[in-house]
Amino acid sequence: MPHELDARREGFERQFADFLTARREAAAQVDDRVAEILRAVEARGDGAVLEFTELLDDHRMTPAGMLVSRDEQQTALERIDPETLDALRLARDRIHAFHARQLPEDLDYTDDQGVRMGHVWRPVQGVGLYVPGGTAAYPSSVLMNAVPAKVAGVERLVMTVPAPGGYVNPLALAAAYIAGVDEVYRIGGAQAVGALAYGTETIAPVDKIVGPGNAYVASAKRQVFGRVGIDMIAGPSEVLVVADGDNDPTIVAADLLAQSEHDTAAQAILVTDDGDFAEAVKRSVDRHLQQLPRSEIAAQSWRDHGAVIRVADLADAPALVDRVAPEHLELAVADPDAMTARIRNAGAIFLGRHTPEVVGDYVGGPNHVLPTGRSARFSSGLSVLDFMKRSSILEVPPAGLQKIGPAAVTLARAEGLDAHALSVSLRLNQGER
Amino acid sequence: MPHELDARREGFERQFADFLTARREAAAQVDDRVAEILRAVEARGDGAVLEFTELLDDHRMTPAGMLVSRDEQQTALERIDPETLDALRLARDRIHAFHARQLPEDLDYTDDQGVRMGHVWRPVQGVGLYVPGGTAAYPSSVLMNAVPAKVAGVERLVMTVPAPGGYVNPLALAAAYIAGVDEVYRIGGAQAVGALAYGTETIAPVDKIVGPGNAYVASAKRQVFGRVGIDMIAGPSEVLVVADGDNDPTIVAADLLAQSEHDTAAQAILVTDDGDFAEAVKRSVDRHLQQLPRSEIAAQSWRDHGAVIRVADLADAPALVDRVAPEHLELAVADPDAMTARIRNAGAIFLGRHTPEVVGDYVGGPNHVLPTGRSARFSSGLSVLDFMKRSSILEVPPAGLQKIGPAAVTLARAEGLDAHALSVSLRLNQGER
Repeated sequence: MPHELDARREGFERQFADFLTARREAAAQVDDRVAEILRAVEARGDGAVLEFTELLDDHRMTPAGMLVSRDEQQTALERIDPETLDALRLARDRIHAFHARQLPEDLDYTDDQGVRMGHVWRPVQGVGLYVPGGTAAYPSSVLMNAVPAKVAGVERLVMTVPAPGGYVNPLALAAAYIAGVDEVYRIGGAQAVGALAYGTETIAPVDKIVGPGNAYVASAKRQVFGRVGIDMIAGPSEVLVVADGDNDPTIVAADLLAQSEHDTAAQAILVTDDGDFAEAVKRSVDRHLQQLPRSEIAAQSWRDHGAVIRVADLADAPALVDRVAPEHLELAVADPDAMTARIRNAGAIFLGRHTPEVVGDYVGGPNHVLPTGRSARFSSGLSVLDFMKRSSILEVPPAGLQKIGPAAVTLARAEGLDAHALSVSLRLNQGER
Repeated sequence: MPHELDARREGFERQFADFLTARREAAAQVDDRVAEILRAVEARGDGAVLEFTELLDDHRMTPAGMLVSRDEQQTALERIDPETLDALRLARDRIHAFHARQLPEDLDYTDDQGVRMGHVWRPVQGVGLYVPGGTAAYPSSVLMNAVPAKVAGVERLVMTVPAPGGYVNPLALAAAYIAGVDEVYRIGGAQAVGALAYGTETIAPVDKIVGPGNAYVASAKRQVFGRVGIDMIAGPSEVLVVADGDNDPTIVAADLLAQSEHDTAAQAILVTDDGDFAEAVKRSVDRHLQQLPRSEIAAQSWRDHGAVIRVADLADAPALVDRVAPEHLELAVADPDAMTARIRNAGAIFLGRHTPEVVGDYVGGPNHVLPTGRSARFSSGLSVLDFMKRSSILEVPPAGLQKIGPAAVTLARAEGLDAHALSVSLRLNQGER
């Protein structure tokens, strides 16, 4: 049984606060081992990468064997059934079209003091995309990371994907191929992150590393952060569905289970004002579970982390949503726009009864890499901006410096920084000559 | 003597690569002590904060005494000389005007499949601003962090500033007052970061923590990351000046020293094509050093981390700049716009001979919180966007789902996620009824 909370009952506030804080993962004690792998890769390059790959992935290679050539990617693509390939291409095109709208504009203007300022956006030069191995080598995830990088103008996009026993999911290679990934290497784990961050004889280092991974990969990304940029460290997936009684409970139940089936730590929450509907959803969940291939995982997730929260009025939902700050938010209500206007913290919002979160996982257009674990309070989903950076520009003509320079001298002196003051005052005096 | 490199000589590539990697700070071994302080604050709130403040800042307070009231801030402001206060207000107004142009626009459109998508931007609800104590309580830094937060629409901006022996720099309080900071507490160190992240009886928790600090503060920010957002962890300040022989060497020398005087780990680099000019700058540096109050710090920084890099042609400068990826870049050349177009990695670019980096520290308008330690390769200076986050929106009408839903079902099945497929196919079947 999922957690049951009722906002109309006494003690709800305490119960809800406990529910929010209960779900914290114990940090795996992998940091020391990962540090050792990273030091070895930094010191010994290819040799260390290949040793750890043989040891951990049971896969022996030469340095040249790490590269998955463009031909190999194409061969993988040709083996995929046409319907799946068409779906992948539709996904790529829709993701591309949406993310192209995120390209930022440069700013360059001169104010009334004659001071010119603004900023220029530039792509990150080299980006590494980590893709997990085995069944978790999701092609949708390759597209969601690779397409925005290419839209941003990243010149060199390098993907690593482990090949346990030599096997790489052909869907992941096909996705890399159609997304325009520049280099693919069949390595994974902390050794792949180390190779991307420090570079080896075969793999040139990148400037930023993105993509999901297990506890070893997450630890490695944290440890190389600073040397390179990283994206967020993603936690288990979450959905919160706000639904009134006018929904089909079998559909809402399927939406909840689409999160629960990801892994046993995933979380699905239903917020509703209709008690009969809540009961019907729970019954539908149980019925679906009898038929789903991943029912064991989904059932455990629903039991341990799932929740049904009853509110007196759906107008009370936004305040609860903001405290949960869910990764995915479905608003299966009559006026989803009005409710959206009242939501402050959510990674992605799915409006109305006909918009399953799942469409957003694959072919909607917006990114499916989203902030988890309440981090939507302070962060956003992956975007083109994550693959670009901004340089501010400032140009002060002599006349402008006479106007604003003296204030800079005053503040520099107030802060006790006399070389700062000198740098401006020498120019001010020069201007008077 | 600073490092001397000459791009025209054999062995330059090796020497330059060594120079780039030499400057890494040894991570202070403070993590364990910080973890202990954070655990205490999380468990015991105010009591722990006050104990550590008494122990580490030699300052005893009651819980209520932590708050620096708006009246106290105003009293501090009234004690400041009018010229400095005017300069602070000019800085605030110029920073405000520039950052107001960074406010992002929402996106909401419907594509040719009838699918509506976009995103909405929202401010982070609660932000903590850490300000260091003593002479490092720079009012300019308060403005550079607080003003963008307020422009973004942050409702609750909380500042902490330690009061060693009870003393807080009145300039920092005045800056907080004119920037509209909502709450100020006289606490610092890891205990202040803990109070902001976990909350105490007196201080409500925030969603994100920004601002500079020492090794303890940096470690604390790293450790609470995830629970709250954080800004970048800033390293020592840097400037790279590209200058031809038509510059006044005394001015360029002052610009270099304005970085060197920050601290002994700061870095100032001159890139020039003119050997005589380079020698003249070095002589000017030595002359300035004889007169500057912070000459001991500046001299050590210039000796240990300073560098003069000679290039055959200034057209070779952008490639070197990109590898250094400096926090601050001055282009004291005849056509700074043409050179800017060739620069990819720099936190802030100051164009032309009349634009000292120092103006950007105080009154230019763009932010002075910038990426250090080569991180301009993958990150940007502080902006309004750091105080906002984006929720993507997606709305699929029944007709649109018939068009793109089948591809989502195909991909879900290819990834082995059957509840995902079910969530879409149930709606597709419903649409046919």
